[in-house]
Amino acid sequence: MKVAVDAMGGDYAPREVVAGGLDAARGDPSLHVVLVGQTDAVEAEIRACGGAPSNLTVHHAADVVDMGDKPVESLKRKPDCSILRTVQLVATRQADSCVAAGSTGAAVAAAMMTLPRLPGVRRPGIAVPIPARNRAGVCLLVDAGANPECRPVHLLQYGVMGSNYYRLMYGEAEPRVALVSIGEEESKGNLLVKESTRLLKRAAVRFSGNAEGKDLFRGNCDVAVADGFVGNIILKTAEGMAEFFFGLLKEILPGDPRPVLGALARRTDYAEFGGAPLLGMDGVVFISHGRSDRRAIANAIRAAARSVSANVRGELTRGLTDEGGE
Amino acid sequence: MKVAVDAMGGDYAPREVVAGGLDAARGDPSLHVVLVGQTDAVEAEIRACGGAPSNLTVHHAADVVDMGDKPVESLKRKPDCSILRTVQLVATRQADSCVAAGSTGAAVAAAMMTLPRLPGVRRPGIAVPIPARNRAGVCLLVDAGANPECRPVHLLQYGVMGSNYYRLMYGEAEPRVALVSIGEEESKGNLLVKESTRLLKRAAVRFSGNAEGKDLFRGNCDVAVADGFVGNIILKTAEGMAEFFFGLLKEILPGDPRPVLGALARRTDYAEFGGAPLLGMDGVVFISHGRSDRRAIANAIRAAARSVSANVRGELTRGLTDEGGE
Repeated sequence: MKVAVDAMGGDYAPREVVAGGLDAARGDPSLHVVLVGQTDAVEAEIRACGGAPSNLTVHHAADVVDMGDKPVESLKRKPDCSILRTVQLVATRQADSCVAAGSTGAAVAAAMMTLPRLPGVRRPGIAVPIPARNRAGVCLLVDAGANPECRPVHLLQYGVMGSNYYRLMYGEAEPRVALVSIGEEESKGNLLVKESTRLLKRAAVRFSGNAEGKDLFRGNCDVAVADGFVGNIILKTAEGMAEFFFGLLKEILPGDPRPVLGALARRTDYAEFGGAPLLGMDGVVFISHGRSDRRAIANAIRAAARSVSANVRGELTRGLTDEGGE
Repeated sequence: MKVAVDAMGGDYAPREVVAGGLDAARGDPSLHVVLVGQTDAVEAEIRACGGAPSNLTVHHAADVVDMGDKPVESLKRKPDCSILRTVQLVATRQADSCVAAGSTGAAVAAAMMTLPRLPGVRRPGIAVPIPARNRAGVCLLVDAGANPECRPVHLLQYGVMGSNYYRLMYGEAEPRVALVSIGEEESKGNLLVKESTRLLKRAAVRFSGNAEGKDLFRGNCDVAVADGFVGNIILKTAEGMAEFFFGLLKEILPGDPRPVLGALARRTDYAEFGGAPLLGMDGVVFISHGRSDRRAIANAIRAAARSVSANVRGELTRGLTDEGGE
């Protein structure tokens, strides 16, 4: 099982990415981790961490993509950048899956430029696991930002792919799929939601109706479908609220706040959840938070490997019909 | 200063609404609180609370609106319902402002059916104060759900009205107005955001650019503009995340969790923030959370009175031009 990792992507790259790759490789001899990036820089970090085990290798890429705001242009200017090379290893079957922690826009663009879509899929979507009070402890939010201009058929497809992914990865036979809206009543919401509700009701998923932002954390659904604009805002709002709470708790908690904050972080930290798959491309691409540390990277590598073992690629579009128009 | 209160609206009505009205009236002799609702029920609650002071009176309304999903139909079926009667007191200048804690949809519909819009305003928006790390400790989110199908000109107007309201109510000479998007870069976002950014840059406000969900709590802006669908989802996501954190803390905190949870609640509780004004109608309407207790109601009554004293009605549309097309 070979997992390629963009060693140059993320706020703490290459140091933390290399360290995470080493942790994952050392912890599981059946894994093979390929660190993709500027060989000199990556090998220096490997040496600083005590050298590479035999199941970790380096694949050279001369460039690093800019964190600027035009991912496609940036990738076209730099064909030898690490994120493109990482995804190409998957496209050419030299790796089974890959992990990227740099710019989400660049990772999505690299995947869309390099990999074919799975048959029938209109647009890929990012599926982010968020903490929830359901059986698996996870609500999967699709799309979290790949597609900010969704049509109803895209939301329908996110529901189907999200349901299949959740079933395979979290062992829930019939995940409850909800559509994010501003009230449970079907009469509420905008035009996109109303039309998408109609499609999801007829889809091959266990559609549990419309859900509000608070229902995600309550565990009232397993998969929450939203357009990429709304999904990204849910994610960033939850992150901002968590940050705000941690700040307040530091002021409020009597004595040393660290034990409580640490326990709280272990239950809410994105680093625990192992990255977010880009659903819909013919190839496994996991996108990790830009602030990923070694633990987050190692968890993302394990999740990427697990999703290959679970045959996500073969099962992801089960039940996807061509219904829903353009 | 006369404030009308829908005594029958909210999850804990009439008991908590009546108690909140009494607290506000007893605490400020310059206020006159008018409780609107079924006289028998309201007066029974007043007696249970030790009787009314001279600056609290009851105004009869025979009906209570349904919490169903069709506010306009429900209001048309019940012309003598408490929410309509409450807003009518403002429309006929028998009250200076009003407070409603029942269905938000019904309150918005009652205001739109009963009051004229302020000159030049296309659509009213709900302005919800949320906790933030800026000087006033408040970020004002407009619109939080009145208008789920926004056009760019609506967002422009929410920016202008939100800025004026913030200046008058929170004493910030030039509030920073941000547009909620999925990244600070202008190239990110959907079509609505891109077009609205263009309008806000030319508007008579201190436009600080586009902001992500997490920026609201960080205090990076004073007014956050969003369409009603997105704004409502921000609000509910923050609420859900807070609820999730409180649940985790109850499990994690050693010993009695109540002091810490109490201190945390005082810094994050909607009840502290005094309700959300509906901006854009010619008459002051405050909407309070459905779960409002007596403290939340009393704070909303005080905020409604303060907004009349601050001349919000006269100043709200300052700088509003007819720019922005349909």
